[in-house]
Amino acid sequence: MFGCLVAGRLVQAAPQQVAEDKFVFDLPDYENINHVVVFMLGTIPFPEGMGGSVYFCYPDQSGMAVWQLLGFVTNEKPSAIFKISGLKSGKGSQHPFGAMNLPQTPTVAQIGISVELLDSLAQQTPVASAAVSSVDSFTEFTQKMLDNFYNFASSFAVTQAQMTPNPSEAFIPANVVLKW
Amino acid sequence: MFGCLVAGRLVQAAPQQVAEDKFVFDLPDYENINHVVVFMLGTIPFPEGMGGSVYFCYPDQSGMAVWQLLGFVTNEKPSAIFKISGLKSGKGSQHPFGAMNLPQTPTVAQIGISVELLDSLAQQTPVASAAVSSVDSFTEFTQKMLDNFYNFASSFAVTQAQMTPNPSEAFIPANVVLKW
Repeated sequence: MFGCLVAGRLVQAAPQQVAEDKFVFDLPDYENINHVVVFMLGTIPFPEGMGGSVYFCYPDQSGMAVWQLLGFVTNEKPSAIFKISGLKSGKGSQHPFGAMNLPQTPTVAQIGISVELLDSLAQQTPVASAAVSSVDSFTEFTQKMLDNFYNFASSFAVTQAQMTPNPSEAFIPANVVLKW
Repeated sequence: MFGCLVAGRLVQAAPQQVAEDKFVFDLPDYENINHVVVFMLGTIPFPEGMGGSVYFCYPDQSGMAVWQLLGFVTNEKPSAIFKISGLKSGKGSQHPFGAMNLPQTPTVAQIGISVELLDSLAQQTPVASAAVSSVDSFTEFTQKMLDNFYNFASSFAVTQAQMTPNPSEAFIPANVVLKW
């Protein structure tokens, strides 16, 4: 039903089924993984009204499994690219794999897919840094960052009339920041 | 031998074989595509000493096919994610699909894979903006951009002693920019 692809490696199309509604792919050498693609094979759709939540699971320093919600796949959006390279220091989130007790190996992480009601998925919030779609709006993001910067910098802006005498301090005309 | 996946859509595993060593996937509604994953299915490896160059082909305003080299897949690196959303205004590059005369439909682009000698691939340069690995260094890129900005803004910096009288113009202390 599902496939998993680590960018640069061979595709995996045979997850381990750890419960009726739960599937797990192993990700060996996960510290060298940047992007993971999770997709439906197109053979079996989700049952009506259901979809899959996609989790990344990695062992913390004490070997305990940390689970993070990456996002979702559904019949309407049957594939997604996730960025996992920034997640390894993040906090764990609630997850439905609690009782699975998957064996943790220091260098092996997992992708877990849990088949759930779409209504239930709609109430879950993935970790923001995993969304590759946010990278799509790169220009937008940059623009927003610069707007923030202008607002931040402007809060320090002074006119010459307000300046305290300190002839050595350098000032940048605010319109230069704005033009850039 | 190859699969192709548009992020958000169903996987395609049956390219059109347009020559003995050339394979093509159609990408309908390509203007709404951000990322494309190209991968080997793992069934048949490349012959010894060979690999695949991966091209994106889209119709320009006059309906002519524009080809751009995205990158490569090889037995050692059997999958890759490419960002195509920034490529639609780029210039075409040399490509080996010249005589194919693929039918061009305004909203349909193609991914073309050409099986070639690794030595030949090593002499080809993909369009830089297609590499998703560059997205990995997002923070680095942002830092560089801000450094550039500081250098740019600093070139306008003045001290109070150098200021021409204009009490209404706003100035931002340079150290605010630097701290940010």
